[in-house]
Amino acid sequence: MWPLAIFLLTYVFTQSQCTVLEERQELLERELAMMVGSSIKLSDSELKANEIIMNLKNEEIQRGFIQPKYFNLSKHFFEYKEEVKKTKLFQIIQSMPKGAVLHAHDTGLLSPDYVLALTYWDDLWVCFTNDKSNVEFHFSKTTPAAPCATHWKLMKDARNASGDVTKFDADLRKHFSLVIDNPNEVYTDVNAAWKKFQQYFICTGNLFSYKPVYEQYYYDTLLEFRKDQVMYLEIRSTLPSLYDLEGNVFDAVETANTYKRVTEKFMRDYPDFFGAKLIYAPLKLVDKATLKEYIRIALLIQALMPDFLVGFDLVGQEDLGVPLKEFAHELAEVRESLDLYLHAGETNWYGTSSDENLFDAIVLGAKRIGHAFALIKHPLLMEEVKKRQIALEVNVVSNSVLKLVEDPRNHPLANFLSQNMPVVLSSDDPGIWEALPMSHDFYVTFVAVASRHADLKLMKQLALNSLYYSSYPEKHKLVHAFEIRWTKFIDAIVKDKW
Amino acid sequence: MWPLAIFLLTYVFTQSQCTVLEERQELLERELAMMVGSSIKLSDSELKANEIIMNLKNEEIQRGFIQPKYFNLSKHFFEYKEEVKKTKLFQIIQSMPKGAVLHAHDTGLLSPDYVLALTYWDDLWVCFTNDKSNVEFHFSKTTPAAPCATHWKLMKDARNASGDVTKFDADLRKHFSLVIDNPNEVYTDVNAAWKKFQQYFICTGNLFSYKPVYEQYYYDTLLEFRKDQVMYLEIRSTLPSLYDLEGNVFDAVETANTYKRVTEKFMRDYPDFFGAKLIYAPLKLVDKATLKEYIRIALLIQALMPDFLVGFDLVGQEDLGVPLKEFAHELAEVRESLDLYLHAGETNWYGTSSDENLFDAIVLGAKRIGHAFALIKHPLLMEEVKKRQIALEVNVVSNSVLKLVEDPRNHPLANFLSQNMPVVLSSDDPGIWEALPMSHDFYVTFVAVASRHADLKLMKQLALNSLYYSSYPEKHKLVHAFEIRWTKFIDAIVKDKW
Repeated sequence: MWPLAIFLLTYVFTQSQCTVLEERQELLERELAMMVGSSIKLSDSELKANEIIMNLKNEEIQRGFIQPKYFNLSKHFFEYKEEVKKTKLFQIIQSMPKGAVLHAHDTGLLSPDYVLALTYWDDLWVCFTNDKSNVEFHFSKTTPAAPCATHWKLMKDARNASGDVTKFDADLRKHFSLVIDNPNEVYTDVNAAWKKFQQYFICTGNLFSYKPVYEQYYYDTLLEFRKDQVMYLEIRSTLPSLYDLEGNVFDAVETANTYKRVTEKFMRDYPDFFGAKLIYAPLKLVDKATLKEYIRIALLIQALMPDFLVGFDLVGQEDLGVPLKEFAHELAEVRESLDLYLHAGETNWYGTSSDENLFDAIVLGAKRIGHAFALIKHPLLMEEVKKRQIALEVNVVSNSVLKLVEDPRNHPLANFLSQNMPVVLSSDDPGIWEALPMSHDFYVTFVAVASRHADLKLMKQLALNSLYYSSYPEKHKLVHAFEIRWTKFIDAIVKDKW
Repeated sequence: MWPLAIFLLTYVFTQSQCTVLEERQELLERELAMMVGSSIKLSDSELKANEIIMNLKNEEIQRGFIQPKYFNLSKHFFEYKEEVKKTKLFQIIQSMPKGAVLHAHDTGLLSPDYVLALTYWDDLWVCFTNDKSNVEFHFSKTTPAAPCATHWKLMKDARNASGDVTKFDADLRKHFSLVIDNPNEVYTDVNAAWKKFQQYFICTGNLFSYKPVYEQYYYDTLLEFRKDQVMYLEIRSTLPSLYDLEGNVFDAVETANTYKRVTEKFMRDYPDFFGAKLIYAPLKLVDKATLKEYIRIALLIQALMPDFLVGFDLVGQEDLGVPLKEFAHELAEVRESLDLYLHAGETNWYGTSSDENLFDAIVLGAKRIGHAFALIKHPLLMEEVKKRQIALEVNVVSNSVLKLVEDPRNHPLANFLSQNMPVVLSSDDPGIWEALPMSHDFYVTFVAVASRHADLKLMKQLALNSLYYSSYPEKHKLVHAFEIRWTKFIDAIVKDKW
């Protein structure tokens, strides 16, 4: 009886009362209510700030909609990254509290200019290959013992001998950045981009792993992230061995300890910062014995620094790495004692081993998934991710620079946002592509990926998500501090000063 | 009681019995069972054919997975369209029965070589602009009266006077094709690609609308589609006025009638072909009065040829066209008497008027939606499309040539296929980008868009979908004939002859 009555009522309503435009409006509103951020209620001040922000956003979109050639964000990131900084909207986003950064690799976070400045440190030696296509570094009191394709020179001498320090430094800087003038010609596919990307880590390896540099780089990373309105960080590290001038070599445990100590120092210097935690994330292209050794190290560090190490991951170009499936047994064994934050689905090869790492990450109970770019092709897994509330660490700019998607408007994040998937934005390795710690990723997401209708609510929710899905033990404190900063941010917009 | 028991059973199973790899396998299988084609059971012969096809597909994918620079389908379509034709897999797909084509624009279907050959017809006049960047045509016994930026010449004379017929024809041919050597430099965005695309229709307008050419072009279109293993066609047309050498001008009704007569002739000549139906699809950048006139014409043609005209649509670059919303009242009024097959969501501007044409298409009760590229960003509409069984006419190659998506692996079709959305493949305007009528779209979908696991079942289902979602009145006959052809196709593969 009732179902029939309801059916008839619905029918009568649909057919007679409800015009096409009313039904359209109803669907539109229902769908907007599904979006990330839709449950947020804006205060009066926020509504005013929102109007300002949305006017700026709509101006940008309207111009592009009519004349797409003027839409910066559909071009290569290298073409627009500096240009967008000049816009008022970008500057507002720069000043916006962004919450936490949950997916960032420790030695890819600072700009090539910063890295270049490190090469001015004393006791640095350099080894160029004959064609200068590669370079290695080593800090040492005497000529390094490590092999060199040509011969080791003191950096200072090499620079002075060059005759043209400006050119020498400009050439050297190229090793510290993926940014080039013709990225579409050089980075023609994922492998080509990753080759240069990996070369960065190889060439900077011994530059960074000099203990004093390592400490300074990390301290300055926290500084840069804080400046970009990040309040807390979960940093992934391969925990390389560190060394000093006295011939000491420090193992992964000591590297972790170094991070812990510098974090504590930074928090004393900047008490408004909520600190950082560590995700041990060694390379994934290894055999099982090595994996087991990794796990042993992770458990050891966790036992020693239970408040600092929060979990485990594996890194490297996913298509060419060992599938997670191969390590499923070992990871399953340890998952009760060690939280997993696994990279998975950083690929557009649908149905391959890297694509299907998503299955493993989910069944292994990962707390969050790194990238999950390919998740859009897995309707069942999307449901599982929602059900299990596994956060997706999405890195829009990274995915575009590393050649997964050309135009951010086609990034699967648009879909994730549309249906309130548990998304956090992150920036992966912003230093290597000369992005700000988080501002570019927020800007691109807000203007290019999300709906034209997506407003301040979306950005606030994304920042809040990064707190909710973090491993920070007292989240209410994070959220409380965030709310205070957010209110200040809103006031500044309304008063037109930031 | 029962729910608890089931919960406990599930719990026990999940926690103890079911290892991680078992759960992984279960999820994988459940997800594969959601894919387009998963309900098809393959016969023994089909299984054998499938093995052959899948070996070829996997070879292609494996090579690309390891070395993406060798993966043709992630390059621009113009770079690989001829190359792929040489592969055995492409040739198998060429010989595969493809069912119906449900989204194709009448004057964009044949190759530039075909169009060039039309310029050898008698009584053709040509008008070049000074810089030869544009060209117009007219068939006439005497100098055409239409204005000309330079002056009208008999085509024959212009060609002879050129001194170099090969070069003359090569230059002329460029007006009939979007294909160029440096597409990424010239077609930098949607507008740039559409400008050249629209120029094609403008310059060929009076070449094609000469009634004898119009009839021949259409007859030869049917021939080409039949050769590419298409058995039935629903063709969209703006129904331009036709003319002849005697000064007669024929209106839209007569153009429709011409299509009907040629279709009948073709079916007499080729009784195995199931014919064609017409979707009247005039330009969408018009005012309401013009729209009303369009609708009047559609209803008139439908009254005169109720078995031939099956519906109505509006065409043109969607971002720059009038939003469907503006015409919602008029279209709603007529939808009970005239089926709608509306273009919607052929855009990547999320949340704009073109994106939201999807809402209108759905509430207006469209039988099928043209493109629906943007649907991926509308979770609620995706549900509605499934519920209402509105077919999506997806044109992968078109979307890539017309700059919506660079790499077909990022086309939303991957998601649509993964969750068994009501999809039909089509080819839009294959002649203009020198694609075969349907083979390229099937090949790209099968190898690049769909999962590595997607096999013969997917292709068979896509072909069957095109029959199910057609307007053909006796679908069982279509399906029956299809099944016979399919069996022959399978036999030929198994016997290694096609």
